[in-house]
Amino acid sequence: MRIEEQDLVDRLRAFAQDPEAAHLIAEIQEYRPEDIADCLVRLDSEDAVLVLHALDPDDAAYILVELPSETARAIVNELPDTTVAHYLDILPMDDAVDLRAQLDPERFEALLHVIPAEDADEIRRLLSYPEGSAGQILTEDFVEVGPDATMAEVLQEIRQTADEDYETVNYIYVLSEDRHLLGVLTLRRVIRANPSATAREIMNSEPVTVPAEMPEEEVARTIARYGFSAIPVLDDRGRMVGIVTADDAQEVLEEAETEDVLAMGGVIGDAEAYLSLTPWQLIKRRFPWLAILFLAEFFTGSVLRHYSIQSDEGTGLLAQLMLFVPLLIGAGGNAGSQVTTTITRALALGEVRARDWWRVIRRELLVSFVIGGTLGFLGFLRAYLPFVGWNQPVSLSLVVGIALPLIVMWAASVGSLLPIGAKALKQDPAVMSAPFISTFVDATGLIIYFEIARLVLRAFGKSF
Amino acid sequence: MRIEEQDLVDRLRAFAQDPEAAHLIAEIQEYRPEDIADCLVRLDSEDAVLVLHALDPDDAAYILVELPSETARAIVNELPDTTVAHYLDILPMDDAVDLRAQLDPERFEALLHVIPAEDADEIRRLLSYPEGSAGQILTEDFVEVGPDATMAEVLQEIRQTADEDYETVNYIYVLSEDRHLLGVLTLRRVIRANPSATAREIMNSEPVTVPAEMPEEEVARTIARYGFSAIPVLDDRGRMVGIVTADDAQEVLEEAETEDVLAMGGVIGDAEAYLSLTPWQLIKRRFPWLAILFLAEFFTGSVLRHYSIQSDEGTGLLAQLMLFVPLLIGAGGNAGSQVTTTITRALALGEVRARDWWRVIRRELLVSFVIGGTLGFLGFLRAYLPFVGWNQPVSLSLVVGIALPLIVMWAASVGSLLPIGAKALKQDPAVMSAPFISTFVDATGLIIYFEIARLVLRAFGKSF
Repeated sequence: MRIEEQDLVDRLRAFAQDPEAAHLIAEIQEYRPEDIADCLVRLDSEDAVLVLHALDPDDAAYILVELPSETARAIVNELPDTTVAHYLDILPMDDAVDLRAQLDPERFEALLHVIPAEDADEIRRLLSYPEGSAGQILTEDFVEVGPDATMAEVLQEIRQTADEDYETVNYIYVLSEDRHLLGVLTLRRVIRANPSATAREIMNSEPVTVPAEMPEEEVARTIARYGFSAIPVLDDRGRMVGIVTADDAQEVLEEAETEDVLAMGGVIGDAEAYLSLTPWQLIKRRFPWLAILFLAEFFTGSVLRHYSIQSDEGTGLLAQLMLFVPLLIGAGGNAGSQVTTTITRALALGEVRARDWWRVIRRELLVSFVIGGTLGFLGFLRAYLPFVGWNQPVSLSLVVGIALPLIVMWAASVGSLLPIGAKALKQDPAVMSAPFISTFVDATGLIIYFEIARLVLRAFGKSF
Repeated sequence: MRIEEQDLVDRLRAFAQDPEAAHLIAEIQEYRPEDIADCLVRLDSEDAVLVLHALDPDDAAYILVELPSETARAIVNELPDTTVAHYLDILPMDDAVDLRAQLDPERFEALLHVIPAEDADEIRRLLSYPEGSAGQILTEDFVEVGPDATMAEVLQEIRQTADEDYETVNYIYVLSEDRHLLGVLTLRRVIRANPSATAREIMNSEPVTVPAEMPEEEVARTIARYGFSAIPVLDDRGRMVGIVTADDAQEVLEEAETEDVLAMGGVIGDAEAYLSLTPWQLIKRRFPWLAILFLAEFFTGSVLRHYSIQSDEGTGLLAQLMLFVPLLIGAGGNAGSQVTTTITRALALGEVRARDWWRVIRRELLVSFVIGGTLGFLGFLRAYLPFVGWNQPVSLSLVVGIALPLIVMWAASVGSLLPIGAKALKQDPAVMSAPFISTFVDATGLIIYFEIARLVLRAFGKSF
């Protein structure tokens, strides 16, 4: 695979150097669009334009839609209107709609007047659905028959209509006169059924459908859940308007997963490929959260300062307490990261719902009590023991041993309830990222630590 | 959706209370196996066994394979051998292989003697492939024809062989006499082609294939990449042994994503559903990393202690330096989390390869220099300014301002190179989790901080 890929990159580069080399273009055309797109990313955009221009436009269009959007945008801006219009014309309509994001709005509008009116109308229809909904990723090309059609007629219909523009013909949809969906036939059943049987007799009359306004991620999860190869989409009056196919759903899921993963790491932005982003774009995706968390961490400093100003420097106990700060906030942050990651993922997969919060928090408190208690015991030993530990007084060691489980339990509560709360408020739970939870637990965990210290040391007749 | 789900849970519970209620079972059977499985999880396992037993075994088998493995294991242990053998018999072979993980090995071996020998042989064949490889998720049920078959004959072949056991008939595979794959026909082309055309004339003779030993995640990514609905699998002598279908690939991907996400959060384990895990299992998944990171954080304490023992307490500067510790290690940890999340995801998607390390580190150093420099400036102001800041001497404020960009750049280097290094060593990059990077940066970042402090304060004629 890798050697082949290097081959392809070399060929693309060689062609960009010598655009007269027709044999190179012929060789390049042997590859699949997905592979060519992957390798084109490694060329600069002038060279990529050169290559796309030389390829058969029908191939070039399919390569373009596989490119990361930043790369695609750079290339589309260099291509003449006639070429882009041709791409819009030949691409499946959902891909054409995708391409719009790469064009500036006036140019896109102008191009719609160049392509066949029927295609332009379909693109406009898809664009009228909410951004990121099923409506924008559906295709209107599906095979439909009436309930009284015989299997022989269904096959005839497929022969006459289902050309390569149709993304799938696995399902044949049985519609009433007013375009309501009565049932679905699989192509396999059509082939295997008696040719004179009617659609009504053979069809599954309880197909799973989705409304056109459903968010695309939810549609994609539904398709994945049932293992369908396509799902019918209904408008708000229950009429069938198109289908969303499994491969488009797969792309939606992959992007959604990437966005979730990045959000959980504290990175803002869409699923754009890493290498196609400029350093400036990377900064824009990372700086906001980092700056917010940095400002929040000022508060941690203020907490430390608050207790140090109050402290009686003479005892030297504050300096000793300070040594355990990274250990305590580290444990809290790590425990919080684990919990928020687990819960956010379970929410994304629908395994946990917002209304399960009580079940979740009970489990998390139990689990974190056991884990935190064990860490607390280890922390106590580390503080108290001579030689292997730091040989601290028992009072201070107890502070560490007691504060640890409390901080870990606090981190687990915050790490589970904040994502669930976000979900309940219809926000993206992934925003309650591991760095966010860590930072939150840093400041609040320190308050727990110093208050425990105050109580325990007082019991031993000391203060810090 | 939700209301329906509650309905189904209620019906399942009602049936478990009153197993004579035949109308309830009829109603339950109207639902899809995926939905019934989701709701069965919310019953205890005795009740779930009761329900499964009452359902038509053909439905029950499909529900069982949709259950989280912990729940499935509990149920299978309660079911009699004849029932489980029947399930093994009717399930697609890849699902039957999956079921093995829920049974103890002797029982599974014994059951193989009860089911038809042909099925048992197929299960044994699949089990002979490496754990987690394409071989274990393939199905041997695919439609095959010779190169000289006409389209009419291909349709006839589908009518005669492709019953409901066949997961897909979208592709028809053209094999030579010695079972080498010559090409692939899509069912759509078969239907639309001239009935007397031969397979050789119509087929695509350069299909993408995968070897049976390929790890299942890689197979799944290949299917997703090209948007196939199935991919042919070849043995080590190039003979076609089966196909992996897109819906099985989708499941593999979802599990792999979940494992990656959890690993990035510092949680060990497979994609088992959160609510089906016992608290004890949750502890086992979380404690190992937490304990390792906790021990590693001891080292951070040792770093602090090292510098505090060396310090000249009289100046009081150490206590001031200590106040900035959470701010500095927080910024380093958060920046490191962002980078490791971004790079690990790009590696998982194949956007970045191990050999891109130099490109990555150059970008990351530039990006972290800009981000770290900005945070450093903010940190300086926070330390130096009166009123809005802490009114510290310029020397100490400079320490903070200089140490911050260095720590952020260090975190970015560690956060990008460690996952790439893991990948180069064929390890899972996701193990270089956000908590791991944070903890690593805590201790090492403090060394940077205190060494900068030593240098800068010396320049000002001070020491701490």
